[in-house]
Amino acid sequence: MVKAAILGATGYAGAELVRLLSYHPDAAVVYPASHSYAGKKFSDIYPGMKGVADMTLREDDIAAAAEEADVIFLALPAGLASSLVNEEILGKAAVIDIGADYRLHDRGIYEKWYRTGHHSPQLLGEAVYGLPEIHRADIRGRRLIANPGCYTTCSILTLYPLLKNRLVDTRGIIIDAKSGTSGAGRGEKLASLFCEVNESIKPYGVASHRHTPEIEQELSEAAGESITLQFTPHLVPMNRGILATCYARLRDGVSAADVEEAYSMYSGEPFIRIISTPPETRFVKGTNTVDISWRLDERTGNIIAMGAIDNLVKGAAGQAVQNMNIVFGLDETEGLMGGAGSPF
Amino acid sequence: MVKAAILGATGYAGAELVRLLSYHPDAAVVYPASHSYAGKKFSDIYPGMKGVADMTLREDDIAAAAEEADVIFLALPAGLASSLVNEEILGKAAVIDIGADYRLHDRGIYEKWYRTGHHSPQLLGEAVYGLPEIHRADIRGRRLIANPGCYTTCSILTLYPLLKNRLVDTRGIIIDAKSGTSGAGRGEKLASLFCEVNESIKPYGVASHRHTPEIEQELSEAAGESITLQFTPHLVPMNRGILATCYARLRDGVSAADVEEAYSMYSGEPFIRIISTPPETRFVKGTNTVDISWRLDERTGNIIAMGAIDNLVKGAAGQAVQNMNIVFGLDETEGLMGGAGSPF
Amino acid sequence: MVKAAILGATGYAGAELVRLLSYHPDAAVVYPASHSYAGKKFSDIYPGMKGVADMTLREDDIAAAAEEADVIFLALPAGLASSLVNEEILGKAAVIDIGADYRLHDRGIYEKWYRTGHHSPQLLGEAVYGLPEIHRADIRGRRLIANPGCYTTCSILTLYPLLKNRLVDTRGIIIDAKSGTSGAGRGEKLASLFCEVNESIKPYGVASHRHTPEIEQELSEAAGESITLQFTPHLVPMNRGILATCYARLRDGVSAADVEEAYSMYSGEPFIRIISTPPETRFVKGTNTVDISWRLDERTGNIIAMGAIDNLVKGAAGQAVQNMNIVFGLDETEGLMGGAGSPF
Amino acid sequence: MVKAAILGATGYAGAELVRLLSYHPDAAVVYPASHSYAGKKFSDIYPGMKGVADMTLREDDIAAAAEEADVIFLALPAGLASSLVNEEILGKAAVIDIGADYRLHDRGIYEKWYRTGHHSPQLLGEAVYGLPEIHRADIRGRRLIANPGCYTTCSILTLYPLLKNRLVDTRGIIIDAKSGTSGAGRGEKLASLFCEVNESIKPYGVASHRHTPEIEQELSEAAGESITLQFTPHLVPMNRGILATCYARLRDGVSAADVEEAYSMYSGEPFIRIISTPPETRFVKGTNTVDISWRLDERTGNIIAMGAIDNLVKGAAGQAVQNMNIVFGLDETEGLMGGAGSPF
Repeated sequence: MVKAAILGATGYAGAELVRLLSYHPDAAVVYPASHSYAGKKFSDIYPGMKGVADMTLREDDIAAAAEEADVIFLALPAGLASSLVNEEILGKAAVIDIGADYRLHDRGIYEKWYRTGHHSPQLLGEAVYGLPEIHRADIRGRRLIANPGCYTTCSILTLYPLLKNRLVDTRGIIIDAKSGTSGAGRGEKLASLFCEVNESIKPYGVASHRHTPEIEQELSEAAGESITLQFTPHLVPMNRGILATCYARLRDGVSAADVEEAYSMYSGEPFIRIISTPPETRFVKGTNTVDISWRLDERTGNIIAMGAIDNLVKGAAGQAVQNMNIVFGLDETEGLMGGAGSPF
Repeated sequence: MVKAAILGATGYAGAELVRLLSYHPDAAVVYPASHSYAGKKFSDIYPGMKGVADMTLREDDIAAAAEEADVIFLALPAGLASSLVNEEILGKAAVIDIGADYRLHDRGIYEKWYRTGHHSPQLLGEAVYGLPEIHRADIRGRRLIANPGCYTTCSILTLYPLLKNRLVDTRGIIIDAKSGTSGAGRGEKLASLFCEVNESIKPYGVASHRHTPEIEQELSEAAGESITLQFTPHLVPMNRGILATCYARLRDGVSAADVEEAYSMYSGEPFIRIISTPPETRFVKGTNTVDISWRLDERTGNIIAMGAIDNLVKGAAGQAVQNMNIVFGLDETEGLMGGAGSPF
Repeated sequence: MVKAAILGATGYAGAELVRLLSYHPDAAVVYPASHSYAGKKFSDIYPGMKGVADMTLREDDIAAAAEEADVIFLALPAGLASSLVNEEILGKAAVIDIGADYRLHDRGIYEKWYRTGHHSPQLLGEAVYGLPEIHRADIRGRRLIANPGCYTTCSILTLYPLLKNRLVDTRGIIIDAKSGTSGAGRGEKLASLFCEVNESIKPYGVASHRHTPEIEQELSEAAGESITLQFTPHLVPMNRGILATCYARLRDGVSAADVEEAYSMYSGEPFIRIISTPPETRFVKGTNTVDISWRLDERTGNIIAMGAIDNLVKGAAGQAVQNMNIVFGLDETEGLMGGAGSPF
Repeated sequence: MVKAAILGATGYAGAELVRLLSYHPDAAVVYPASHSYAGKKFSDIYPGMKGVADMTLREDDIAAAAEEADVIFLALPAGLASSLVNEEILGKAAVIDIGADYRLHDRGIYEKWYRTGHHSPQLLGEAVYGLPEIHRADIRGRRLIANPGCYTTCSILTLYPLLKNRLVDTRGIIIDAKSGTSGAGRGEKLASLFCEVNESIKPYGVASHRHTPEIEQELSEAAGESITLQFTPHLVPMNRGILATCYARLRDGVSAADVEEAYSMYSGEPFIRIISTPPETRFVKGTNTVDISWRLDERTGNIIAMGAIDNLVKGAAGQAVQNMNIVFGLDETEGLMGGAGSPF
């Protein structure tokens, strides 16, 4: 039984992690923590979990967590994780950071996009980017996992086979992404109010969203050259779900068969479905599944590759559990659902 | 391993049953059937279940189903189930009817409210009303289970302790209920279009909804006298969830302690939570849980008892699984989730 | 041209008032004020009004407002209005208070339900309850109008004819009301976040909501006797709209014709429609219309009377404009739309 | 007073036209028609218009309409309008076709994308593409106006200044558009059910949507060269609104000042707002306004130009009224609102 700590357990991602681990056959939350709600029961904050997760929330104390847990999940604001993790902690527990602090290999890029200092740059080399479908072999047995962002998970997995196989131009890639509102978090912000979100759609973070360099890092690695791309997120009036509509120019002579072959790299993946119709976020809601579909347009010479995930599951907590399963040698799918109900 | 057939597997309730049984450790769907989609894969109709429930749909043939299955779930339009079930079928398989045909003990009341004939009235005496929290002992080992309606499950469980313990007047009871739109089914009706439902709430079936006699039957039994009550359903712009706000006049001298004592009848129930704040449907979404809360109003002398369920789970498919578990001697909670994610 | 001031112009009700007055042929906002946003343009806060209402917001200064305006609308938190209004202000401008401070004739009842002191009880006698369909004659030429609450407008207008004509028992009345989320205001509260409201319905303020005494006051006046009733509001995942489902016991011998006759009191009303099907909030969205429908249930002896309004229009800003029109001798319907688009 | 006929008055666009004309000071609907509902009152189908538009619906008979009306609005399925309009009709009344039949100058392109024959190709030369901000001078006094599509209005107006002024590459343009569900119409289709749309987003018509050639036609004209572009629509769980996020590569040396200068072509336009923050569909809901914003990305060399409209107003009925106003020499803004309420 893997003993888990969660720091930041009452944010949406942290709470989803509590929920997923409550069904996990080989893991248990032994140290749920929340700075805002320490001392209260988790189910007082999330009444839907009453009877299932009634444990008392503790302070966000990573040292105490490391004494009791085998793995520490961090669901904290940018900059905080990097000030908490150190070699001593990693000597006692594996750390899976759901936040952004260890995702970018280059400290300068991190500090520029996140506008904050990095407090443990010496650990960047130890961290592995926890996207199992790309870096599974590196994740096994590692101590510090940088769990990818929600937009990035969806975007990278959707485009990776095209770049890895040099099927598209590396210039001019555009990712137009759409997210449910849980991606904005549980903070009491005007822009997150029901009446400000409902019955509307808007772009935000245009040309400036922090997930951009993370996507570029991974796709550059796939392509073997430096990629600069356009990423535009949008806010959609729904609770969950991310859809990434990705545009790239096919290289000369690339055929549909080539594309099909490229995506066959996912054929053994338990959480990726290559489908023939455009993905809909509802069909992955509540699951760790990624639905990917693509279409060639002979008129324009473009490929439109589309991916959908649940931002709180494959985009956060579910992928964190997947990473935990890998790190601890469990079956990678344990505790992670495969099928989405409908309507849900 | 209990082998299950589902007739009407592609309606919302039938599909939810497929989903729930796909996670059930001791049951499997061996005969999924759909008149409209026979010959197609279930996951072609419900793409969220691709990779999980890809079996081919068969024709709604109860005789064929009875040859292969231990239990047959019926999710069919009113009047159809009663024309299909007979002693021979029941001799081969247990039948759990998610529809209304066997819920009302009195054929005349059925035919009046449903405006259709009943085709197997001789079986009404064999059927048990499948509300486990009230009729658990009767359900064990039975062959024909009438799975309660969604509104009725919520309303009956919310009011039952008050009537059983004679705490409220049996006259003047009012149930004002609200349901998510999946309760209207998957039919291609104008009134179910997104643009006709979204951003609005409306009452419907005022003074005439078919769930009324079912609630009255069970509460009359609880009270030991015939009850006539007011039931008004409303359509809410959300996918799932039923909330029943119930009003009754407290009998003289009844105290809060009496009410608390009455509801303690549910204290061992795995799927009922008595909570101190008004229930919210989101906290039971996707689960088989019933959240119940009550408030006494000294000014008016009323008790306001409020219950919430997921209409497709405890109000249909989940309760059907619960009934199956009881009939076949399995742990009653098998395959049924306890905790609701949030937001979901 | 009536010159209007609005204090609290950036809350949802205040902003709706700015919008409605921007189309009003005989009124203009000369003093828009907001404590939070003084110095900014109104359209910076409400970008949908860019080009239409770009005036600079001023401080919530009632004395300054009274110098410039013929009418001052107050959209302020409970208790604040009563500390601002005095005889001197009323000598210079009419005051239409969208808040609750002057609605209840009895100071004690106000202070008990609102848990705050009343700062100008001497004005309670001067104030008129601004429900034009009931108190039109009293409103003309008055200086201090207490604009009714949203739930109360809907509830009172729905039940008034029944009580005025003694068609129902005055005991046992139940109002089960449902509101869109704009009723919760623009405050940055956890409970108002999209992800906390969407896909759920909940009761709140059970047996304790502040609109209760206001409804009782007006219906008691109609009935000629003191009425205590049950009022339960619910939060619905939609922007706008209130639905009140009201239950009362018909007195012996009362017929459908009697009820029809009672509701005919509204036959000349420009903003009330008596309809034959249950009201849906979408059909009054954005308008000052009240849709009312009723059904007799012979089984229970009850009448179910149902009303729907737009909480921000007839429930707040629209009714305030209607009151302004009456006070200043304009056509009562000026600047107030009659028809609701669909879908909207 | 302009006398108007509407054929197809009970679809969402037709009904919105009825609503808008009901407030128009210089126009009136004299011949509302609906094949499905002929003989019923308009307000029986749209109860929100009760008391405002109670006229009886007539048959979709263009000849009869032409006898009574000065202008005939057609809101009909593709292919039907082209079989109804002829020189005789145009001799009696102006025709504003809200459908697609006269939008494409090239009959072959129409027949290819719409997969239907064109029944009056001889009129294509007479028709003017009714986008007033581009073709205003041509619209005045014309007899046959092809009212633009919803996606196209938004996309063309957003990109036009960039192409007209040769600021961007004509190759590689991508339009990622998102629409509310009213764009799918009032047909009783499974994919339009509340439970199939809510809580999800999906692309559709990828590389094949019929609005593509219409956008290409107009932007090619602006650029003075043939443009092929990528257009991808998405379905969003909201009633109304279109957002077009457009991507193009800036030509070398183009500065922000150049872009600003280009968009200044709209500075006198009553219905276009150039704003500094990304547009949100809620801020144009219910209005004929287009909100446009743009951002240069130095990293990628792209411009991201974003536009938002209400698909039923500027994207259909509102623009049709605007066209009518121009054709008949009325003030172009008559009967068309400027400000959007919020929340709405």
